[in-house]
Amino acid sequence: MENPQEYTMKHRLAYYECDQSSHPSLSMLVAMGVLASERHADVLNCGRQAGLKYNGAWIILSYEGQLSQRQPVFGDEVVLGTSLVGVNRFFAQREFWLADATGFRFATMTGQLGFVDLSRRRIQAIPDELVVPFHAPKLKRLTRPRNQDPLSADVADGQSHYQVRYFDIDGNRHVNNVRYFDWMLDSMGADFLNAHQLRRFNISYKNEVRYPSRVTSRYQMTTDERGTVKSINQIFSHDQLSADAEFAWQKRTDK
Amino acid sequence: MENPQEYTMKHRLAYYECDQSSHPSLSMLVAMGVLASERHADVLNCGRQAGLKYNGAWIILSYEGQLSQRQPVFGDEVVLGTSLVGVNRFFAQREFWLADATGFRFATMTGQLGFVDLSRRRIQAIPDELVVPFHAPKLKRLTRPRNQDPLSADVADGQSHYQVRYFDIDGNRHVNNVRYFDWMLDSMGADFLNAHQLRRFNISYKNEVRYPSRVTSRYQMTTDERGTVKSINQIFSHDQLSADAEFAWQKRTDK
Repeated sequence: MENPQEYTMKHRLAYYECDQSSHPSLSMLVAMGVLASERHADVLNCGRQAGLKYNGAWIILSYEGQLSQRQPVFGDEVVLGTSLVGVNRFFAQREFWLADATGFRFATMTGQLGFVDLSRRRIQAIPDELVVPFHAPKLKRLTRPRNQDPLSADVADGQSHYQVRYFDIDGNRHVNNVRYFDWMLDSMGADFLNAHQLRRFNISYKNEVRYPSRVTSRYQMTTDERGTVKSINQIFSHDQLSADAEFAWQKRTDK
Repeated sequence: MENPQEYTMKHRLAYYECDQSSHPSLSMLVAMGVLASERHADVLNCGRQAGLKYNGAWIILSYEGQLSQRQPVFGDEVVLGTSLVGVNRFFAQREFWLADATGFRFATMTGQLGFVDLSRRRIQAIPDELVVPFHAPKLKRLTRPRNQDPLSADVADGQSHYQVRYFDIDGNRHVNNVRYFDWMLDSMGADFLNAHQLRRFNISYKNEVRYPSRVTSRYQMTTDERGTVKSINQIFSHDQLSADAEFAWQKRTDK
């Protein structure tokens, strides 16, 4: 590997990584980014197994991302890429992208990560062993997490309830972070989702959702003076805000 | 391709194709089989696009399968394989498998398929163009679909309700067939699923579930004289039996 900070892998899009638009779903876009980052760490021998030596694991604190209007369809060969942008004592920042063979980026995402002690469920200092091999620069600026007021049921434009399911839990024994996207988007309904394409998003994870429990997904929609549709989407678990996101939408022209 | 009846592809298991046991979930095992079969048809120029020329698409009528006790874990390189076992005027039979590089099969599945007219939603004769390139033999024997009595709520050992979600719908605009497995298994709960490993299954699809609607998943468990735990699992939509399955389980020894 020439630059240990960066990693790319070829990937052919499976139909089950795409939704009914034939393009990758948001949850799968992010999951494919995480897949690349896990393989990146494995190549440098500082992946999941190395983390467990410190009784720890990475957690995602927030993501933000942009999607191009042109998106790939299932069957396409794409490149999944990731770069460890920077690290400090407690946090790391990763970039993820999905590109075509010419380097055109269908999506670029940035994630803020922390490293938690798996017994005490608390952020702990990142062991040097897990980051030194990347030769990543010192992280100076942390993206500030979104801090939107919680949406109450009476101001929300819609809300739906979701039971957390067995298959929402991943190998870390947690609800996989991308499931929040599915709950958020599903609550907006097929008519909206079929007519709109996601162009920008950010999400901030506040409190872990546990299995088995029931979550509430609420959203509020606004259209600004230039006609851009935005939504604020929030997940609640036991009346506590679990995740807070903002999406920017564009009318679909691809069908 | 030496034998056009058969197709194999290398695949590296993504973490999101595996459940919390680190092994592929049943729904993903079947989805990976379908992935191989779609690429198989594409290679022979008789895939989805060719079907649309006849305003038709393949539908799955039933599956049956066996899983070995040893299962791969995420990150493993596996081989996805499929063979068009046979065809007649209205039906086709496909075998799917997941194997390691030595040919050891982690899972072998057989599926019965029909070809439907997309406007009239009825089985139609399979166009020659879609099957001749495989050089598959004439299908003589069709596996008879399971015909279990519907489980009523009072005889069931458990039942759960599931809202059909936007992301359950696939590129064919139907609830993806593998989602039924998730509803069936989820209803059995984490304690059972974490303690048991699936070894055999069959499923028969009776009536299509539509979006948006709510399904009921019911199961009944039995233990035979040799200690084998079996379950009958059924999905109901609007009080109609949508899918009927039987699973054979073994106590997990892999953790």
